[in-house]
Amino acid sequence: NKQPVTTTSYSDRGMSLEAELNESNQYYLANDIAVIHKKPTPIQIVKVDYPKRSAATIREAYFRQPSTTDYNGVYRGHYIDFDAKETKNKTSFPLKNFHEHQIIHLRACVKAGGIGFAIIRFTNESKTFLLPATTLFEYWDAQAHDGRKSIPRDVIEDAGFLIPYHMNPLIPYLNAVDQLIAAQK
Amino acid sequence: NKQPVTTTSYSDRGMSLEAELNESNQYYLANDIAVIHKKPTPIQIVKVDYPKRSAATIREAYFRQPSTTDYNGVYRGHYIDFDAKETKNKTSFPLKNFHEHQIIHLRACVKAGGIGFAIIRFTNESKTFLLPATTLFEYWDAQAHDGRKSIPRDVIEDAGFLIPYHMNPLIPYLNAVDQLIAAQK
Ligand SMILES: [Mg+2]
Ligand SMILES: [Mg+2]
Repeated sequence: NKQPVTTTSYSDRGMSLEAELNESNQYYLANDIAVIHKKPTPIQIVKVDYPKRSAATIREAYFRQPSTTDYNGVYRGHYIDFDAKETKNKTSFPLKNFHEHQIIHLRACVKAGGIGFAIIRFTNESKTFLLPATTLFEYWDAQAHDGRKSIPRDVIEDAGFLIPYHMNPLIPYLNAVDQLIAAQK
Repeated sequence: NKQPVTTTSYSDRGMSLEAELNESNQYYLANDIAVIHKKPTPIQIVKVDYPKRSAATIREAYFRQPSTTDYNGVYRGHYIDFDAKETKNKTSFPLKNFHEHQIIHLRACVKAGGIGFAIIRFTNESKTFLLPATTLFEYWDAQAHDGRKSIPRDVIEDAGFLIPYHMNPLIPYLNAVDQLIAAQK
């Protein structure tokens, strides 16, 4: 039942949040803790060649806008859904990092009983937080009224959960999910 | 919060199981019942052109083997994971329709507390069943011992749940999921 763990050639320095999350998800999977994957990027395929004796080759294709977030899966029987975002800002997280369809998707997931959140990294200090979807929705909806286009860092520290760096997994974000689930009870 | 429902141009006759499931999932989403999507096909991108003033064009890419099943999402707080398969056989469902990585993935999902199953259609009579993952695992594992390479249709009728055709949604498979959840309690 164990899955092989691919060792990546990334060094920790400069490894993107996404690469670190993928590695963490491999750890969680290999240790029977959770099954969470990044979804493939949706591609619109226009032209495919089928050469004799070799693999089908896509010759013309375009990137499509995803209609969901990047990550989902199952942990402790809970449906987990999130997106990961990095910002160079120091004092706030700009809402323009999210697309409306991602917010719509997260809202639908939470409504159906799933656990939704964002993983936000302030790259300047390399600090990573889990932000509950409900706080994200609050600030997203308020934009239209108060014109504020970002979530203050204080709010993220308060309403969110710090994810300290760790070994195995590198980003132990499911500990923060445990806290989120406990807080929702 | 409502998402637009794309009306498809398929007629019922000859519509593939996958197309019917996608349409059913759109119905479930638009009516706030469940959030279940088919995952994009994973593609290995080798060469991309970035023409001026137009969209990035993928010029060389290859299909990759998916490491999961095709469908997942959330319903009534449950994580849902499945694959859809059609067979022209009449009296049994050939196990070769599944890849080992799909079985491994379904096993991991069930172990993590998710609801796993297959949706199997006998195309000859156009009869569709939900088969619980546990029955699939039983026959998958037995192959090595008894050499039987298929699941008898009787077993699918018995251990599975018939999904009758319907309007809105066309394939009301979440009714069968309700039965599966109730049976597991
Ligand atoms: Mg993303
Ligand atoms: Mg399939």
